[in-house]
Amino acid sequence: MKIALLSGGGGGARFARGLAEVLPAGDLTVIGKVGDDVEILGLHVSPDLDSLLYTLAGLIDDERGWGRAGETWGALGAAGEWGGEDWFRVGDLDLGLHVVRSRRLRDGAALSEVTAELAARKSLATTLLPATDDRLRTLVETEAGTFPFQEWYVGRGHRDEAIGVSYEGAERASPAPGVVAALEEAEAILLAPSNPYLSLGPILAVDAIRAAIESRRARSVAVSPLVGGKAVSGPLDRMLRRMAGGTTPDFVAQGYKGLIDALVIDETDAPAEAGVELVVTRTLMSDRDAERRLAETVLEVACG
Amino acid sequence: MKIALLSGGGGGARFARGLAEVLPAGDLTVIGKVGDDVEILGLHVSPDLDSLLYTLAGLIDDERGWGRAGETWGALGAAGEWGGEDWFRVGDLDLGLHVVRSRRLRDGAALSEVTAELAARKSLATTLLPATDDRLRTLVETEAGTFPFQEWYVGRGHRDEAIGVSYEGAERASPAPGVVAALEEAEAILLAPSNPYLSLGPILAVDAIRAAIESRRARSVAVSPLVGGKAVSGPLDRMLRRMAGGTTPDFVAQGYKGLIDALVIDETDAPAEAGVELVVTRTLMSDRDAERRLAETVLEVACG
Repeated sequence: MKIALLSGGGGGARFARGLAEVLPAGDLTVIGKVGDDVEILGLHVSPDLDSLLYTLAGLIDDERGWGRAGETWGALGAAGEWGGEDWFRVGDLDLGLHVVRSRRLRDGAALSEVTAELAARKSLATTLLPATDDRLRTLVETEAGTFPFQEWYVGRGHRDEAIGVSYEGAERASPAPGVVAALEEAEAILLAPSNPYLSLGPILAVDAIRAAIESRRARSVAVSPLVGGKAVSGPLDRMLRRMAGGTTPDFVAQGYKGLIDALVIDETDAPAEAGVELVVTRTLMSDRDAERRLAETVLEVACG
Repeated sequence: MKIALLSGGGGGARFARGLAEVLPAGDLTVIGKVGDDVEILGLHVSPDLDSLLYTLAGLIDDERGWGRAGETWGALGAAGEWGGEDWFRVGDLDLGLHVVRSRRLRDGAALSEVTAELAARKSLATTLLPATDDRLRTLVETEAGTFPFQEWYVGRGHRDEAIGVSYEGAERASPAPGVVAALEEAEAILLAPSNPYLSLGPILAVDAIRAAIESRRARSVAVSPLVGGKAVSGPLDRMLRRMAGGTTPDFVAQGYKGLIDALVIDETDAPAEAGVELVVTRTLMSDRDAERRLAETVLEVACG
């Protein structure tokens, strides 16, 4: 039962973990976003692929929700002492990954190759693919100007209201090797409970990915990231209200028009109408059991 | 009283600290070796300049003799997990410096520029110069083959007897900006108690540096790295026996022929003859007081 998942953010990574736990080994392919990738201290950082890698490999700090458990912060502090940038929180354990990946990229390896190498080091049963090997960056438009994602979110603490989102480089970006095949061969396509603008937007902005989903033969199911009309974390509800017009499930479904056959929503958001099949369940992944239960429910909706 | 010091290794750094403490601020220029520089995890590491920087800035781990006090090792362990090289011990605090320097070098800055920037961050009163901004690497010839210094020393634990030392790139290397001027303007030139082959060799291998010392007007004084015919640390005594023929002060002096007017030796090596003026004192820098006392004695020999 081959499953392709589009994932971004911490919720996406936890949903991927739930799926990986309930699916037979090797059946899951996760397509991760690269829109938040950023160069820090001359190193290439892929926060989303790392969250997926750390979560699937059991290394994530589940309490903090990002980065590695047992993390220390010496290198970043020292870099600051010597005049290096220290606005982006890179821990020592995290840095070990960034230097390895950065060197491979500088040596000419594609991001998808390095990602596969890293996943292999941890013997992941899940295939992990970046949406694209090309440079694609999420830009957030605000009243204070337009900022690359990390600068807006981390650097400025997302204090500026987002009034638009664009994906620099998307029109020239090709899907990474394996992405379109994974979508075409999947028996179900899943969209994780992620921010449609910031997390799945930069994946769906790659034309060939969107086209592969639009022309799907398999069923496609999204999980709404809303719980009671609110984001579990992050600025999603404010963004939906401003950019889509509201925070009910239909505004989420509209954003995925033509891309999904069903939307799984939280019981706190029912009853609702959305122009697609709606499935009501508890979507909040409050613990590992809840992750697995949501995964099972969504697989049932998708595969019957 | 302008003083120029050629320094390599931990002993050189401690001698530099002693001089910096007894000289008026701004009077000391230290010319450090780059022969041991190495690329680790895609980062440029300058172990000798770092030892000087850490020692002069009060950051060195005096007990271990290298690296920073309070060091942690998370990043290197993580890099190893992901397939990165981990044979060269780079701590987290240390790594913070390497990423900052590496980025500046990749952006086109010269090593001497970056070194000046780093020294300025710590408001060092001592001028710190790399011998050269060009690529110069110490190669150690052994029965098992010829190895770059760090590979021989750290990678293979210097278990292979050194039968020769060469300095790759030396013939094309120019002194870094300020080096020749520092030697010409110095009221005394000092050679630290460092390994002549591995520590001062890669500095003296730069023709224009050697020439500037040979044609000096100031007095030049070396401190023998031997105490009782033995190295305080490292493989010097074995190297001297094999490559120079013996481990008495005259073998050290021969290595500096034409470059020094006096050699300061430890009382355990007296009486000796060496073809240059010999000054007997306690050279072992067993604590900070001993560093200062040695510095004062050597300055007296050099400047009268």
